[in-house]
Amino acid sequence: MLKHFQVPDNIAVRVEIKKLRDIVEKIFMKCGVPHDDAILAADVLIFADESGIDTHGVSNMLRSYVELYNSKVLNPTPTMDIVKETPSTATIDGDKGLGIIIAPKAMQIAIEKAKKVGTGVVSIRNSGHLGAAGYHAMIAADNDMIGWCMTGGGNAMIPTFGAEPKLGTNPIAFAAPCDNQPNFMFDAAMTSIAGNKIGLANRMGKGMEPGWVAHDDGTPDMDGGNSADFAANSVRRQLPLGSTRELGSHKGYGLGVMVDILCGQLSFAEGFASLSDNRRGHFVAAYSIDAFGDIDTFKNNMDGMMRNLRSTKPMPGQDRVVYPGLPEHEVRIERNKNGIPLHPEVIEWFKAICSELEIQEHL
Amino acid sequence: MLKHFQVPDNIAVRVEIKKLRDIVEKIFMKCGVPHDDAILAADVLIFADESGIDTHGVSNMLRSYVELYNSKVLNPTPTMDIVKETPSTATIDGDKGLGIIIAPKAMQIAIEKAKKVGTGVVSIRNSGHLGAAGYHAMIAADNDMIGWCMTGGGNAMIPTFGAEPKLGTNPIAFAAPCDNQPNFMFDAAMTSIAGNKIGLANRMGKGMEPGWVAHDDGTPDMDGGNSADFAANSVRRQLPLGSTRELGSHKGYGLGVMVDILCGQLSFAEGFASLSDNRRGHFVAAYSIDAFGDIDTFKNNMDGMMRNLRSTKPMPGQDRVVYPGLPEHEVRIERNKNGIPLHPEVIEWFKAICSELEIQEHL
Repeated sequence: MLKHFQVPDNIAVRVEIKKLRDIVEKIFMKCGVPHDDAILAADVLIFADESGIDTHGVSNMLRSYVELYNSKVLNPTPTMDIVKETPSTATIDGDKGLGIIIAPKAMQIAIEKAKKVGTGVVSIRNSGHLGAAGYHAMIAADNDMIGWCMTGGGNAMIPTFGAEPKLGTNPIAFAAPCDNQPNFMFDAAMTSIAGNKIGLANRMGKGMEPGWVAHDDGTPDMDGGNSADFAANSVRRQLPLGSTRELGSHKGYGLGVMVDILCGQLSFAEGFASLSDNRRGHFVAAYSIDAFGDIDTFKNNMDGMMRNLRSTKPMPGQDRVVYPGLPEHEVRIERNKNGIPLHPEVIEWFKAICSELEIQEHL
Repeated sequence: MLKHFQVPDNIAVRVEIKKLRDIVEKIFMKCGVPHDDAILAADVLIFADESGIDTHGVSNMLRSYVELYNSKVLNPTPTMDIVKETPSTATIDGDKGLGIIIAPKAMQIAIEKAKKVGTGVVSIRNSGHLGAAGYHAMIAADNDMIGWCMTGGGNAMIPTFGAEPKLGTNPIAFAAPCDNQPNFMFDAAMTSIAGNKIGLANRMGKGMEPGWVAHDDGTPDMDGGNSADFAANSVRRQLPLGSTRELGSHKGYGLGVMVDILCGQLSFAEGFASLSDNRRGHFVAAYSIDAFGDIDTFKNNMDGMMRNLRSTKPMPGQDRVVYPGLPEHEVRIERNKNGIPLHPEVIEWFKAICSELEIQEHL
């Protein structure tokens, strides 16, 4: 399930997680990020790499974060400001801090509120990229709560019947705790494919698969083969989940707007009324399971449901049926043992950046 | 957008809304439903018919509700019990009440909580079908809040790579208020198509469209033409939103599980650990916009976003781009003027049931 966008085994260099984590922390600190925040930022990135969510790990994201700190687009020492709050809600201004650091802190606020009054719902403006949304939702699950995380903004998804992009890929993440089964963790863009995966396909010189993008006039490309040079900043025309009206693209589109509303409108972020290119907002929420009933019963019931889904008879050509969060859990076990596979080109980048930033250690 | 599943104009009989509402109320009361609840139940059904959501209006649903009351599966005078609550949450036992009556009351509880502490999140067990989920979400929007409604259970959706159904169609509804633009209202099954629409296609003798269902072995039918005799209680094998793994069916599947968790696990409803056929649970939530910021600014910004989506350049062959809630709003205006189009067969059913229940009025 995750294999498609991972570095092929024959060229991957395996790197020990502890070593990678250590260097990533140092890189963040060299960007001016305080020690505790650097530890947190590295944890979010490494979680993605550990879990096989390579699109949101060090390979794709770290260099962009470094550039954004260097060009002062991101603030390494933001003052997270609670603009407005009630017992169960908060509106947060991230002061241009990186989302992978702001979102876990916002989730902690949500969790504290949920402990007191049952739920915590937090909308965040003025904060950068938040990495793998699943990480933030999982913080709630690890605290015996249900967790949500979404991030909205940018223009990549074209509305159903449209000819131009108006929404971001707008992922929804949702996590819930199990007892003996790996926690349920859903994390997916509301386009038919994640934006980073299109970037990866491009880098590998591959054409688009059917249903991923639209032709220049907006017509869905259901044959595949379209190419898009994102490096050249060409317009992205990704199709909503569902790809065509007949297959339900109005649902992916509608869910995409919902994410923009929760992240951008509810946080009163700039640019959401006009759907401007560079708008961005986040959303996290935690629902205390204890507020609804007995937590042990809940987790037992979740185990039953997940076992039941895993026991689904597979269709021809497939070994098994999984549930969201299970493959990521399995990859975490394997990579914690064997290290994280990085592309040699990424190893080179680490060498160069460590040299530039005068970091002694190397991978 | 909504046309496909509506009665063709040349055979439809237009019925005045007030008259239809009056008779529907009387039918509910003859089933033993108290007057106020009958008014509410009729309002939910008529909302669907008014809005062009014909699959969830009087034609499809009312006869099933009457049968369930007659056979004592549904309780016409339920005592809605709050099993557990916190300032922002409630777990509700619906005492076998019909969902179209229980859900709006649960939403009222959510709204009261949201007024006090910012959000209200309510999970509901032991309650029947809830009609058009969008109705319940819209109650929150009409109270200047963001509204959610979901309903989970039953076995119609096959998990990605599976050969047998394990989840319901599990719709998600979400509403948010605008100022001058019609409110945003999303309401869609997490299968590629709503279950009732498959039933309708069957009744009209039409085969399935590509991407709607799987073949008997679980392989997605991407050519179309499959037929399924649901009247004969054959197993339903609906594909998740996304239809195939390549087009993102794991996303529709994951969202489907999420709905089951929020509706069934969080309400501690029976049968969700074992995914039993007859399990059912609901979920409603309200987030007070006032808790996050200024409501007028929010609604103005929503207007801007909706206008912007409507102004999207359309692809060839399309007149315009809409947003969820807009077509329904337009149909409401038209049908409030011209009446609700019913199939002559439905008119006959009304005659028969009114005679059986000794109701004097007729359509």
